[in-house]
Amino acid sequence: MSAPRFPVFCALILSHLAASWALAAEPGVREWRQANEHAILRQYFELLSLPNVARDDADVSANARWLEQAFSNRGFAVQMSADRAAPVVLATYSVPQPLGTLLFYIHYDGQPVTPSEWTWCPPFKPCLVGPDGVIDPATVTGAFDPEWRLYARSAADDKGPIAALLGAVDALQTLELPLLWNLKVVLDGQEEAGSANFRRFLAAQPDLFSADLALTLDGPQHPSRRPTLYFGVRGGASLTLTVHTAQGDLHSGNYGNWAPDPSFRLAQLLSSMKDQEGRVLIDGFYDDVTPLTALEQAALAAMPVVEDELMQEFGIARPEMPDIRLEEKLNLPTLNILAMDAAGGMQAPARTAIPASASARIAMRLVAGINPAKQQSLVIEHIRRQGYEVILNRAPSEEELRNHALLARVDVATGRAATRVPLELPEMAGVAAAATLDGQAPVLLPTLGGSLPFAEFSEGLGLPTVGLSLVNHDNNQHAPDENLRLANLWQGMEILAAILRMPKP
Amino acid sequence: MSAPRFPVFCALILSHLAASWALAAEPGVREWRQANEHAILRQYFELLSLPNVARDDADVSANARWLEQAFSNRGFAVQMSADRAAPVVLATYSVPQPLGTLLFYIHYDGQPVTPSEWTWCPPFKPCLVGPDGVIDPATVTGAFDPEWRLYARSAADDKGPIAALLGAVDALQTLELPLLWNLKVVLDGQEEAGSANFRRFLAAQPDLFSADLALTLDGPQHPSRRPTLYFGVRGGASLTLTVHTAQGDLHSGNYGNWAPDPSFRLAQLLSSMKDQEGRVLIDGFYDDVTPLTALEQAALAAMPVVEDELMQEFGIARPEMPDIRLEEKLNLPTLNILAMDAAGGMQAPARTAIPASASARIAMRLVAGINPAKQQSLVIEHIRRQGYEVILNRAPSEEELRNHALLARVDVATGRAATRVPLELPEMAGVAAAATLDGQAPVLLPTLGGSLPFAEFSEGLGLPTVGLSLVNHDNNQHAPDENLRLANLWQGMEILAAILRMPKP
Repeated sequence: MSAPRFPVFCALILSHLAASWALAAEPGVREWRQANEHAILRQYFELLSLPNVARDDADVSANARWLEQAFSNRGFAVQMSADRAAPVVLATYSVPQPLGTLLFYIHYDGQPVTPSEWTWCPPFKPCLVGPDGVIDPATVTGAFDPEWRLYARSAADDKGPIAALLGAVDALQTLELPLLWNLKVVLDGQEEAGSANFRRFLAAQPDLFSADLALTLDGPQHPSRRPTLYFGVRGGASLTLTVHTAQGDLHSGNYGNWAPDPSFRLAQLLSSMKDQEGRVLIDGFYDDVTPLTALEQAALAAMPVVEDELMQEFGIARPEMPDIRLEEKLNLPTLNILAMDAAGGMQAPARTAIPASASARIAMRLVAGINPAKQQSLVIEHIRRQGYEVILNRAPSEEELRNHALLARVDVATGRAATRVPLELPEMAGVAAAATLDGQAPVLLPTLGGSLPFAEFSEGLGLPTVGLSLVNHDNNQHAPDENLRLANLWQGMEILAAILRMPKP
Repeated sequence: MSAPRFPVFCALILSHLAASWALAAEPGVREWRQANEHAILRQYFELLSLPNVARDDADVSANARWLEQAFSNRGFAVQMSADRAAPVVLATYSVPQPLGTLLFYIHYDGQPVTPSEWTWCPPFKPCLVGPDGVIDPATVTGAFDPEWRLYARSAADDKGPIAALLGAVDALQTLELPLLWNLKVVLDGQEEAGSANFRRFLAAQPDLFSADLALTLDGPQHPSRRPTLYFGVRGGASLTLTVHTAQGDLHSGNYGNWAPDPSFRLAQLLSSMKDQEGRVLIDGFYDDVTPLTALEQAALAAMPVVEDELMQEFGIARPEMPDIRLEEKLNLPTLNILAMDAAGGMQAPARTAIPASASARIAMRLVAGINPAKQQSLVIEHIRRQGYEVILNRAPSEEELRNHALLARVDVATGRAATRVPLELPEMAGVAAAATLDGQAPVLLPTLGGSLPFAEFSEGLGLPTVGLSLVNHDNNQHAPDENLRLANLWQGMEILAAILRMPKP
């Protein structure tokens, strides 16, 4: 067994990499930004003021037109996919004697909003917030405090990287520091709704996306507040489980103790799936996980430990699987209940009846090695092994209700596989060096927690691909009060400016 | 041990009672009804057309005025409680040389409605439905088929007994068959909302309610379709249980496998409360149940067995606690989940986040012997024994979230005790005889499944009290498509007419 020697070897590689990342920051960019913070924010407020909820086609298209203008103004050639709504915006920039082509993937659509849940300002009326509340930028005379935050839907996910990229290009152009690489910026208007237009565009004209390195600019950075590179993303598979016990609701007085209670049935079934520590009990659930390589393990070991702070921040007394560190758990498949319901939930008018069914929306995040359909079938097999008759994607018949004391309906949605590429990309060194700010090396995360188009580049186009997370982890992504910490915007500009001028590997 | 002899003794009593119930039906009433079905239904349609959702004060008050008129027209003296809305209507009728006074309790308010869920007609536009659909009464020339049903909110619960009582009085008055008892008819406009006005009225002027026998006219008859007498009602106690795991929702990709999942926690907690067969596992849950007397057991044994038909009808493959018969289970406390919720339920917009909490509304129906507050405390104690920190009637603090891996909030509502009186009431024989139709004796149910004011008479006023269920069991009480089977209305008239002329015990 040579295993014990691997971590030592890997730690050496990592420290070697870290050594080569010195002196990455592009001189002048920081100073330019400090002199132009008002203008940068003014432009970003403009973009954030455009509602961009995925599937609100007219709104999303207005964002596309704004982006077309913004990139054209900076000398990019802009083309759009032929879609009527939420088109893919592809902005390309050519330089003389390029070192090659960098492809950036960013998305400009956002998650749904409930304005009443926002504390500081409505989701599409961005505002700047400091410790004493909302700040009018016009009243700020000196520098903006980098800990202040900008609140708006998509401030972080994922217009933040757009603002950072536009700022980086502005800085380099003003400073007359030439870009060394050709750029292709892919701006997806449907990432929060399945990216159908992007996939179609990519399949129809893959040549448009040729490049030497793809960078996906999405996802939160590590909670240690270091810039984060990731080498894969989780996939997903979900299913809806409904336990049926009767044809209709039954009066709880007349039939209590007689009518089977679907909520208890569902509770028993769910309890069989996960133990008290959060470990999934479904046979084979972890079997196909591609193990972490020694280098990936070393990268994990090198990360700052942040769990105590997170538990404090989120009000969590004990995480699931407390014997495994958070970043390692990102490389294990998950099983979570994102919604559960009997009788329409607690807000529905209260009825004194035993419901006829109870449901749970079960979501699995997948990791490299796991096939989504197979993972779904493991869950279904587990339900069967608990004695249930399982029917798929349809309501039970009266006959089935009468014949099966344990009857479950499962609705299955098509899943998406995870992907993970090796840490040892030659191109990674340049990116890691660019992401090294003030001597702090970036965190190397084998798998990002979220899901986004990554395999489309790494596998579909066969490009060297790496993900770069620029926004604060506590950005309230997908939730009310989404925000971007100003320091992250400023750092993002510096990192991207450095990438646009990084040497060839 | 003389126990084995008890059932024999009791069976003798029951058969003796049955023998004494012969020849109860009042001659002429059936024929009068057959000649006047159109008029009876026309009047009932009028009453059912008045919306009566409890808490819609103006609507409910319009019903009170209709009732005032209807009873005045028949020679009753009508008074109302002093309440601005939903008053108690008290209609009294005096006869020369009365045998005594009978007090009837009926309610005229109804459960909330969702008109879109009604199949045949809107809830307050009553219609008559036969096997081929809706029937216009004007087109009916012969007798109405007694299996046809009248659809409307409160058609059964609880305007059905009002229509039967008005019809019985009309029949006797037209046939010049004098009532032998003074009558007091208490019409409650808030039974579905807690009966506050009734309780206050009763407390303020208990003398108004003096009588020789109280009859509560509410609740469905036994599924065997026999008229049903009941000698008690279930009480109730409920609580809302919320498992808290974090301060806010957390992205399922970034924090899946780390953030505790409240739905699984709730599932595990609920699973600890009830076994697969529906038996409650909470310590002491059944301890205080007053056992059935030998006579009550004999009454149960004498009932027709209806469970196979019910299972067929309701689409149930296996009831809870299948080794105990339905009517016996009405004398055990229940534990049901009437609503359950995580992330707002399945109809709320889907979010890719692990919720911060999950909730269940737990309802208990109680039986004689059980104290509501004690039963609630047994549930809370059980939750504590599963390792939970329990906080009552308030949200957890950030500190509590950080300190307790297992944290549950319980909201407790004031409960109501059950009541049960002995079957051996002297007054019961006359009522049972009146309820014996065409040679079929009524079912004697120790405890009705539902809850209604019964103890107010039996315990509060110390009156001999018995419940009389007249409406079909499959009336969809509290649900859409509430209906009354015409045969039940006709039988109800005959039974009540006989009661109004029954002999003194």
